[in-house]
Amino acid sequence: MAGSSFGTIFRVTTWGESHGKGVGVVVDGVPAGLPLSEADIQPWLDRRRPGRNRFATQRMEADQVEILSGVFEGRTTGTPVSMMVRNTDQRSRDYSSIMDVYRPGHADHSFDLKYGFRDYRGGGRSSGRETLARTAAGAIAARVLSSLGVQIHAWVSSVGPVTCDPQRMDFSRVADSPLCMPDPIAEQQASAWLDQCISQQTSSGGTVSCTVSSLPGGIGEPVFDKLDALLGHALFSLGAVKAVEIGDGTLVSGRMGHENNDEYGIDASGKSVKKTNHAGGILGGISDGSDVCIRVSFKPTPSITREQHSLHRDGTVRPISIHGRHDPLIAARACVVVEAMTAITLLDLMMLNMASTMDGLEMFYNKN
Amino acid sequence: MAGSSFGTIFRVTTWGESHGKGVGVVVDGVPAGLPLSEADIQPWLDRRRPGRNRFATQRMEADQVEILSGVFEGRTTGTPVSMMVRNTDQRSRDYSSIMDVYRPGHADHSFDLKYGFRDYRGGGRSSGRETLARTAAGAIAARVLSSLGVQIHAWVSSVGPVTCDPQRMDFSRVADSPLCMPDPIAEQQASAWLDQCISQQTSSGGTVSCTVSSLPGGIGEPVFDKLDALLGHALFSLGAVKAVEIGDGTLVSGRMGHENNDEYGIDASGKSVKKTNHAGGILGGISDGSDVCIRVSFKPTPSITREQHSLHRDGTVRPISIHGRHDPLIAARACVVVEAMTAITLLDLMMLNMASTMDGLEMFYNKN
Amino acid sequence: MAGSSFGTIFRVTTWGESHGKGVGVVVDGVPAGLPLSEADIQPWLDRRRPGRNRFATQRMEADQVEILSGVFEGRTTGTPVSMMVRNTDQRSRDYSSIMDVYRPGHADHSFDLKYGFRDYRGGGRSSGRETLARTAAGAIAARVLSSLGVQIHAWVSSVGPVTCDPQRMDFSRVADSPLCMPDPIAEQQASAWLDQCISQQTSSGGTVSCTVSSLPGGIGEPVFDKLDALLGHALFSLGAVKAVEIGDGTLVSGRMGHENNDEYGIDASGKSVKKTNHAGGILGGISDGSDVCIRVSFKPTPSITREQHSLHRDGTVRPISIHGRHDPLIAARACVVVEAMTAITLLDLMMLNMASTMDGLEMFYNKN
Amino acid sequence: MAGSSFGTIFRVTTWGESHGKGVGVVVDGVPAGLPLSEADIQPWLDRRRPGRNRFATQRMEADQVEILSGVFEGRTTGTPVSMMVRNTDQRSRDYSSIMDVYRPGHADHSFDLKYGFRDYRGGGRSSGRETLARTAAGAIAARVLSSLGVQIHAWVSSVGPVTCDPQRMDFSRVADSPLCMPDPIAEQQASAWLDQCISQQTSSGGTVSCTVSSLPGGIGEPVFDKLDALLGHALFSLGAVKAVEIGDGTLVSGRMGHENNDEYGIDASGKSVKKTNHAGGILGGISDGSDVCIRVSFKPTPSITREQHSLHRDGTVRPISIHGRHDPLIAARACVVVEAMTAITLLDLMMLNMASTMDGLEMFYNKN
Repeated sequence: MAGSSFGTIFRVTTWGESHGKGVGVVVDGVPAGLPLSEADIQPWLDRRRPGRNRFATQRMEADQVEILSGVFEGRTTGTPVSMMVRNTDQRSRDYSSIMDVYRPGHADHSFDLKYGFRDYRGGGRSSGRETLARTAAGAIAARVLSSLGVQIHAWVSSVGPVTCDPQRMDFSRVADSPLCMPDPIAEQQASAWLDQCISQQTSSGGTVSCTVSSLPGGIGEPVFDKLDALLGHALFSLGAVKAVEIGDGTLVSGRMGHENNDEYGIDASGKSVKKTNHAGGILGGISDGSDVCIRVSFKPTPSITREQHSLHRDGTVRPISIHGRHDPLIAARACVVVEAMTAITLLDLMMLNMASTMDGLEMFYNKN
Repeated sequence: MAGSSFGTIFRVTTWGESHGKGVGVVVDGVPAGLPLSEADIQPWLDRRRPGRNRFATQRMEADQVEILSGVFEGRTTGTPVSMMVRNTDQRSRDYSSIMDVYRPGHADHSFDLKYGFRDYRGGGRSSGRETLARTAAGAIAARVLSSLGVQIHAWVSSVGPVTCDPQRMDFSRVADSPLCMPDPIAEQQASAWLDQCISQQTSSGGTVSCTVSSLPGGIGEPVFDKLDALLGHALFSLGAVKAVEIGDGTLVSGRMGHENNDEYGIDASGKSVKKTNHAGGILGGISDGSDVCIRVSFKPTPSITREQHSLHRDGTVRPISIHGRHDPLIAARACVVVEAMTAITLLDLMMLNMASTMDGLEMFYNKN
Repeated sequence: MAGSSFGTIFRVTTWGESHGKGVGVVVDGVPAGLPLSEADIQPWLDRRRPGRNRFATQRMEADQVEILSGVFEGRTTGTPVSMMVRNTDQRSRDYSSIMDVYRPGHADHSFDLKYGFRDYRGGGRSSGRETLARTAAGAIAARVLSSLGVQIHAWVSSVGPVTCDPQRMDFSRVADSPLCMPDPIAEQQASAWLDQCISQQTSSGGTVSCTVSSLPGGIGEPVFDKLDALLGHALFSLGAVKAVEIGDGTLVSGRMGHENNDEYGIDASGKSVKKTNHAGGILGGISDGSDVCIRVSFKPTPSITREQHSLHRDGTVRPISIHGRHDPLIAARACVVVEAMTAITLLDLMMLNMASTMDGLEMFYNKN
Repeated sequence: MAGSSFGTIFRVTTWGESHGKGVGVVVDGVPAGLPLSEADIQPWLDRRRPGRNRFATQRMEADQVEILSGVFEGRTTGTPVSMMVRNTDQRSRDYSSIMDVYRPGHADHSFDLKYGFRDYRGGGRSSGRETLARTAAGAIAARVLSSLGVQIHAWVSSVGPVTCDPQRMDFSRVADSPLCMPDPIAEQQASAWLDQCISQQTSSGGTVSCTVSSLPGGIGEPVFDKLDALLGHALFSLGAVKAVEIGDGTLVSGRMGHENNDEYGIDASGKSVKKTNHAGGILGGISDGSDVCIRVSFKPTPSITREQHSLHRDGTVRPISIHGRHDPLIAARACVVVEAMTAITLLDLMMLNMASTMDGLEMFYNKN
């Protein structure tokens, strides 16, 4: 496997399998001088931890992060920050029945096509547990961004057929909400829907929305490494994502140009502003100073107890009923991972942007 | 600007502006021994050429490609293939009025935020003309893929509110259709819609669908460089794209798991197959042997003659009416560009995949 | 710090400091199906372990490697192989005196110039302990290369003024020789020289030579990623290296062309061969099928007990005498590290080479 | 061929063959706002142009550079700068005799081993003409560096057995000297030596030295992307280079530690300084504020008229006498190329360094 790294200057490399010794990440390019300890990372991992509510898998992992390098006397030194989470609750016996079977909706078959065999225990490298490592890295990126004034917030905007109503949004409740929904009524409906899914031995898809505020203009490189292109790369690299939208997303294809363009106007304070933000804060691949708006569609958890037809290594098709501990909804636990991947992407592009102009280079090397 | 390159082994680097001397591309990593001449590239450029029909900009460019290196006695040598298209019809006077003005929906403002100034003639580096260079590179990638049995086809699946009907698809007509639509009735309706847009001095959004057939299983790297992640990167790097979907895309968020999983079954010939392809041929970021299905939403052309409020460099907001030669629809001319970016992405991942297993390495170095 | 990774497909990322929790490495791109356990890695680490003889630092580290991921049922799965060596014998009190002092010949001052401060304990990230991580990665690369028939051997060819005599070479003794010298008489002289260095409270420079045999022709990319260019990159990335030579190295600048060219001839078996190998097996950056010959000059250990003038953070110059556990000679322990970096470089280029020709691609995808 | 690019942010991609349509380069990552025209590039190309004196090949190329993109109204825009030099004096008939023959000391055989065939005209991609492209890119890098106060100078320090005497150095004469030697007496001796080489139908090796002055401390990334590692990569990527040395280079292996360490002292003005510079300005891979000192050994031109034994494609060994226009000395024309590769390497590392610390990031994004 190549491709376990992401980013150019702020560069993240993850490792580990669901039922191996643990998962971890090496974060290269962390700037020197950032105050950092495990206490800054752990809350991010806790947000994606299973077992927080009845709609999340009951697997009980402490998911305690250990910083192994790159921090000295409470601050980052500029050297790689290596972090690890040991797997503690492995119960590999749960998975022995799927050793020779390709589960519908899983990477089992495609892994075998590529490598000839696989670590079949709990999804191996394709398990959602790999995102623990990304989340730890994202916690560092977000901490740097925060010191530069940039804020990122993700929430669940739909669960199955239930969608948040823009009139009822209360973002202050997302952090404590079991489904990470800002609309309390939608959350009640979504809970009922998920109960129905569970009773039918199935799962549900959902949508995560994410907004970046106070990102400076000028971030993103105009051709292949556009801000939206790298966000697309980052977010499609999450296992269950099937669509990524920027700004108004798929809606733009049905519109006329004058409906979709964001015209400029003068706001109450007399300042010129974009009057709308259909573009989602990105024009020509470069941030324009408005909020960056992202929407990500997550498929339903493929592991369901309902009987399905799977493929056996011997070529036969057999019924399978997948037991074990699985969330009925991926989207809620994915919010923090979406924030993490967004943070990693943004910070790397902000670093790359520093060398964009002669003015910037001259200011840096004369004054620094 | 960093980020003018894409790919790891098959690596494409584009250059050029709309109204400079030309646009071009260096394609590094082209395998040695491919028969190649300008005659293999030109038809791809002709497909995206303006002026082919009344819905495309009337700018008249010959868009003749010249191969400058990397081919000897009719075959690629393994060295970089450099290609250039000279700009011939520049008429830069058309654009002088927008020198100090940020047009709605364009990269004008974000470029100035990044670099302090810009080549304002015709969009400069952000012009759609940059995709000429990608298309030439994609023609080479597609030619290599074709010799490996892989085929890629894109078409327009919606224009504004008009959507192709799956029951009426005739893919043989796409190549000659002015709007690249396989459904002749939808195309008639779309033409009427575009006439309406033109009469209202505006433009229309649209959707491009793309299918890859006969791609071997096992292509894509399982974590950050998933097949879908790199497709997302490649396709979001096209200027007007606001959404990318794989397989059933945004629909998955509304579904239950048993509806979305692709179960396995036995086909008429007794062979085991996936009975559906909601996943769009990619599981865990790796191709599963089914068709890869992609959908891309293009926004309406932002340049419209209808009056809009733009931002002037001096901070005032002023009315602007953009004249010049602009397509009312980006999607039709974008089909070949979507194919090109898909081809570049797939070939690079097929090359990377060759070193995935000890068996592959040992076969290659013993037998080669 | 960026730049903690090396390689394109076979990609190595190291982390860790001399007196932190440990050092480690993530090896991405390991082909699936390689039999691997700690028992394959440990002998490589043992070869560079301190305390093996009286000329090596008496720091006592077990240097036990732990494989954390990427191996399942005794074989690599294709996912990243993460390895860690915990630091056990840290004695950080030894180093407290150098907290505010820049030692001659060390990275202390340049680190502070870059980052503003540093982990001053035992050299931090610049410690030779970082090479443990590279060595573990190199052990994997060498194991893959070995299965492809490629062998790498390094030895000490000079210590201070003592140089091995080509007439007296016995390579079978290198593995067990304390100074890794194939010439037993030179080794005796070198031992006497090192005793003299120790008695004078100083250290000695030395040279490591390395030969790669049975490398296929055609490896290396002809322009910037030449085989010799990447070897140069890899070997100069070792802390104490001040010169890298390929083939006859610096000698070529004094020669005439007909003396330096390797003419072709017919060997005893009637086969055409290069009659000499001044080029060291590389022509135009590509292996030519002959042995690849490399020579690396290591500076003397900069940590010496002899009094020197150092720079204090306060700007004053002060005498310093560096106590602690330091080898008088870097070259001997560096042999295994040179082999490791060479193996990593070669394997990556062999992987990249697989996509060089249409014939190779077609063979791979038809037969695989 | 992969590997036609070099650099991370300031990224150079070259293309072209000796007897194709031309050679060129795309320079991505040029900062916006640099005044630039062909007149800034051409003098660099003129320095490496053949035909300047009797010791350089008499091939007559105008070598006129054309800037194709990235410059608008006299300043760089931040978009890629594409440059091309058309080949005008091709005389491909000179080379037809070597179509099936592998010349000693050339890349002919290794290219065929890799790709199966090659563009045999004048060395194809492996010709020294490829360095034209690097030189044009280096001219831009040096221009940016100059505005940051960094200066680079290369000269010929030895030709065959003739070495410059440090006591007789007059660097002001290098620019106009036919052999680029600062020691006028050594240059006379070197001329006599080259006359002797020509009369013996052979060529001579030589050494290029290069000094970088006023480079800020802190440049270079401490592990794999050390300043010296990237210089090693850059300089070994030149075709005829067989050794690269930093500071005292190969001499360090014969020294004791106290002889090789650079102690600190107080200079006449009361400022603390390194009293010597054996390290060549780099400690732990990071610049220390002293001059960076590099030495590069170039082999003799392999093309000689003297008869040699070459290998024919049919496996026979045959005499060959290479006619055509070839320098007897590569080193003199290589000086400007060494400067170019050094400039490219340094600028890229200076750009990467900008994101090294929180202080730097915060200063840049608050004040910029």
